[in-house]
Amino acid sequence: MTDTAAGAVALLKRHRSIRKFTDEPITDDMVNDIIGAGLAAATSSNLQGTTVIRVRNPETRSAIATLAGGQSYVESCAAFFIWCADLHRSAVACEMGGGTLSEGMTEHFIIATSDCSLAAQNAVVAAESLGLGICYIGGIRNDPQQVADLLELPDQVYPVFGMCLGWPDQDPMLKPRLPLSVTLKEERYDETNDRAGIEAYDKTLREYYLERTGGKRESTWTADMSGLLGKESRPHMKGFLADRGFTMR
Amino acid sequence: MTDTAAGAVALLKRHRSIRKFTDEPITDDMVNDIIGAGLAAATSSNLQGTTVIRVRNPETRSAIATLAGGQSYVESCAAFFIWCADLHRSAVACEMGGGTLSEGMTEHFIIATSDCSLAAQNAVVAAESLGLGICYIGGIRNDPQQVADLLELPDQVYPVFGMCLGWPDQDPMLKPRLPLSVTLKEERYDETNDRAGIEAYDKTLREYYLERTGGKRESTWTADMSGLLGKESRPHMKGFLADRGFTMR
Repeated sequence: MTDTAAGAVALLKRHRSIRKFTDEPITDDMVNDIIGAGLAAATSSNLQGTTVIRVRNPETRSAIATLAGGQSYVESCAAFFIWCADLHRSAVACEMGGGTLSEGMTEHFIIATSDCSLAAQNAVVAAESLGLGICYIGGIRNDPQQVADLLELPDQVYPVFGMCLGWPDQDPMLKPRLPLSVTLKEERYDETNDRAGIEAYDKTLREYYLERTGGKRESTWTADMSGLLGKESRPHMKGFLADRGFTMR
Repeated sequence: MTDTAAGAVALLKRHRSIRKFTDEPITDDMVNDIIGAGLAAATSSNLQGTTVIRVRNPETRSAIATLAGGQSYVESCAAFFIWCADLHRSAVACEMGGGTLSEGMTEHFIIATSDCSLAAQNAVVAAESLGLGICYIGGIRNDPQQVADLLELPDQVYPVFGMCLGWPDQDPMLKPRLPLSVTLKEERYDETNDRAGIEAYDKTLREYYLERTGGKRESTWTADMSGLLGKESRPHMKGFLADRGFTMR
């Protein structure tokens, strides 16, 4: 194994979200390198269904920080981006090529969402390899219409998540993940041992929370998932997406 | 910039899909390292909405190669995986935590699809840093029900894409991407220069196709997008997903 290889796998395995950044800036060259590396990721049928919008304006950042639920690091990070799943640009290309977008296909929604996520994750790896820290901001989907308005997004484009980039000013613990015995399966979806794996993970995660918060947070994965999935989550998304032309047919 | 950093960014920028592999195997330790690095990616609200199913059985691989449109490398690659967006496991956890899954939320579909894509892309970077080649197989969505049947996927789980891993036995050209002037924007979705950027890319891509195919393929991005988006694409996806519980409300 080469140093780069060992370094890359180790780098990937020590990812943590960073929410506190120093004041040090990031050069535009570095940003171009990171986003360029991101957009070099695989893309379904060469759709390239990703548009990245860098937000520098402090007022826009402040509005996004607020709508995302008061995430102040949206304002304080060195560079902030909104990652958009984009079928508008390819629809323009489709028309330039003599066609007309077949609107609202669920399949197109999936490939644009997946394309955007693949590219974003590649950018994360690029950034982290340079010593930067990152935090995804899914909270922008609290009010995606406001984000769309702020960024003047055309139809067939939706904001999937935000991303903070900056030089870390914290060194948080690694958050434990479900064991591979649960998440990596062979030949078929055999869930015989999943409940035992989840129970073991509950213990691990409980200890992690207690240690990270100095005893203040006591939770488990099953409790967290009950809170997350046991209620309606962003029920406006369907209508918002339909308004943007993602009618899911 | 450290060697690892320079190496990582350069590695990301030289990604190409590999569709021809040597017979050399990949050890299970290496697979665990790659998938473990993949699943260390960020996950929305700690959902961990990804399940990876490794398929070794030659008959299953053959069936998947066929339904994906005759992609023989699904059979010949050293390791083949189906990446699934999984809300079933977290629904089990939700119930263990005293809740009941709020079924069919579009938002949950987005986070599971995105989680799965982030993890897969991290695995790709891990694999490529080790010298392996990869190819995503979106063609499994040609017949996702057959894939679900072959792998005995429970409800609330859907196969997003397949992935071939193996030692490269080819060295394909780098496929050019849209210029950053089109895909990275500042403050708002300003598309003033997009058509010019697309036209320039059409020329670049045409030259790439001609060179790669020795003059056999002559196409452009606008022609490709007209073919891709100008017709219904996998119209069965909506019904398939609804049958799995992804009703998109």
